[in-house]
Formats: sequence, structure tokens, C-alpha cells
Amino acid sequence: MEAKELLREHFLKTISLTNEEFDYVFSHFKPISFKKNQAIISPGDEVDHEYFVINGCLKSYYLNDDLKMFILQFAMQTWWASDYNALFNQGKATTTVDCITDVDVLCLSSGDREKLCDELHQIERFFRWRSNKGYVAAHKRLLSLMNNDAKSRYEELMKLYPELYNMVPKQLIAAYLGVSRETLSRFR
Amino acid sequence: MEAKELLREHFLKTISLTNEEFDYVFSHFKPISFKKNQAIISPGDEVDHEYFVINGCLKSYYLNDDLKMFILQFAMQTWWASDYNALFNQGKATTTVDCITDVDVLCLSSGDREKLCDELHQIERFFRWRSNKGYVAAHKRLLSLMNNDAKSRYEELMKLYPELYNMVPKQLIAAYLGVSRETLSRFR
Repeated sequence: MEAKELLREHFLKTISLTNEEFDYVFSHFKPISFKKNQAIISPGDEVDHEYFVINGCLKSYYLNDDLKMFILQFAMQTWWASDYNALFNQGKATTTVDCITDVDVLCLSSGDREKLCDELHQIERFFRWRSNKGYVAAHKRLLSLMNNDAKSRYEELMKLYPELYNMVPKQLIAAYLGVSRETLSRFR
Repeated sequence: MEAKELLREHFLKTISLTNEEFDYVFSHFKPISFKKNQAIISPGDEVDHEYFVINGCLKSYYLNDDLKMFILQFAMQTWWASDYNALFNQGKATTTVDCITDVDVLCLSSGDREKLCDELHQIERFFRWRSNKGYVAAHKRLLSLMNNDAKSRYEELMKLYPELYNMVPKQLIAAYLGVSRETLSRFR
């Protein structure tokens, strides 16, 4: 499906927009292609954009002082990614967002997001709904991490991203779950 | 400060409302008082309300199969609490929300929240902003949990809730951080 239709379907799942409104909204999104392994956001960057994935798979992660990688999120088709702490608080990135595969995205700037939210109440609703979903998902993941239950984290992940197994190297899935590759292989 | 003024200030930090609009919004909030240790939400409950704290302190937590308590959130004056997974997905509560002290809240139903978001674009904006903040806070906590850095979790907590030490028993703070009381006492 082409980018425009994917974005339209994505919005129309939650809100209603006329064709004219959607065309106007869409005109604020900029298509960009990235190559496998390319970084879109790096620690220290000023972050002014978020990315709606059309094709491929992104990961966002944090490297601690021992260079251990903690994966915060994968983003595949119709998922959004950015460093939201930096984006919403106009600070600098603390995480990396990079490409697991070649990736096509639609890119939206903060200024345009706020302008669209101002102009179209339905767009404000969309972003409220999206944040609600993200908030709930983050809290679920918090609970399963605190509960230290890697098996249910694995099941959650597969429910969230059923197509993940074919797209993502196993060591990245293990890094998302916070387990070793050996532990991961026992879950499958 | 009385409840109405607290809520007004809280909204006006993010959005603008005329006095008339605020009065209208406020008319949808219902004041309720709870006693120390009283449960507001229990696992299995249908959740249709969220709570804006006027006085006192709430906690929301999850008990695992071994009855170990994981504290998801404290909520003091001007914080909001509910089981947001249940509230947003119209499912049943999996967490408990109860009172660490006597508590006064303003209660808002889901139906009224959606009605107000429909009627007043600024209210939709407020709730988008609030969810963005919650999303970012949950991701920060996820990273510090994955990084297993209890010291920085402690510092974050004190930044979020500087008044917490005087209001909350130490074992609850330890349960929030996922550390023992002994470890906690080394941080202070």
C-alpha cells in the first residue's frame, strides 16, 4: 500500500477526517528513506521530528555506561518512533533510533504537529488517543519488568509485534526482553 | 487551597479557559473523600473514573502471584490516578488504587471526560499533554529499571515527588524502587 493510503487508514481507525482534511494533513508529512543500520536520532541530537513507519523496522534503544543495549521500542509498519522525551520536552536525545532494515517513513515536525492539532480538533484527538495507548503499553511493560517475568514479556511482545520474528535478529529480541539468547530460545 | 482553585490552576498551567468554560468543566467533577487504607479501585473492578488528588496520597500497585507488591505510581496533590489500562480499554482493573493517608479527590467519569474533550478543544489538548507527560515518565522509569540503577531511580523519584518522604512509609518507597529497605537507607 502506498504511504498516503497507509497513513489515511491509520488516522481513520481512530478519528474521522474528510478527504480534503486528510489531504491537508498529509501535505505536512515528508517521505524519507533510510538504509539499514542508518541512525535517524543519536544521543545529544536536538529532536524535532517523529516518524511514521511505512516499510521496514526501526529500533529505539539506550546504551548504558557499560555499552549494554536496552531496547525501548521496535517500530514497524504504521508504528511511530522518536525520542519522545526529547521531542516533548525540547531537550536533547538520550536514545538512539536506527534502522534494522531499509526503512521508509513519513516524517512530521513538532511545529507541524502542533499546528495541525490547533487547526483540526480531530487531529488533537488522534494524538491524545495515541499517547494514551503508549502510556498504557509502557505501564504494562513496567509491571512485567518489575515482576521480572520474562516469559510474559515475550508473549506480550509477540502479541504487539507478531511479524517481529521474521524481521529482527534474535539478539535484539533478547535485548528488548532483557534476557540472554539462551533464555529466549526456551520460550519459542 | 480549595479543590476548585487547585483544579483551575492545574488546567491553566497548560491551556487557557475562560471562567465560564472552567465553571462548566468543573461541574463535571465530583468531590469524594476516602479514609486511610481505603481501596478506590481493586483488581477485577470495572473502571470508569479517574481521580484528581486534592489532599493526601494514593498509591497504585500490582500484587504478583507471590503477593509481592509492585508500586506503579504515587499520587499526591494535583496528580491523577486510575487503572488507566482498564479505563482506556474498558477492561477490568488489574491494579489496586488505595489511600496511604486520608484523601480528598475530584472524580471524573470517562463519559464526562470524552464529552468535555468533544465540547472544548482546549480540554482535549490538556488530556493530550497529560498523556504525553505520563508516556515520557513511564519510559524514563522503564529505562532506569532496565538499567537496574536503583540509585538514579531514587533520585528521579525524589525529583518527581519531593514531599514524598514525609508522607509515605519507607517500605512503600522501597517497593516503588524495587529495592530492600536496607538498600534504600543507603541512598539517603
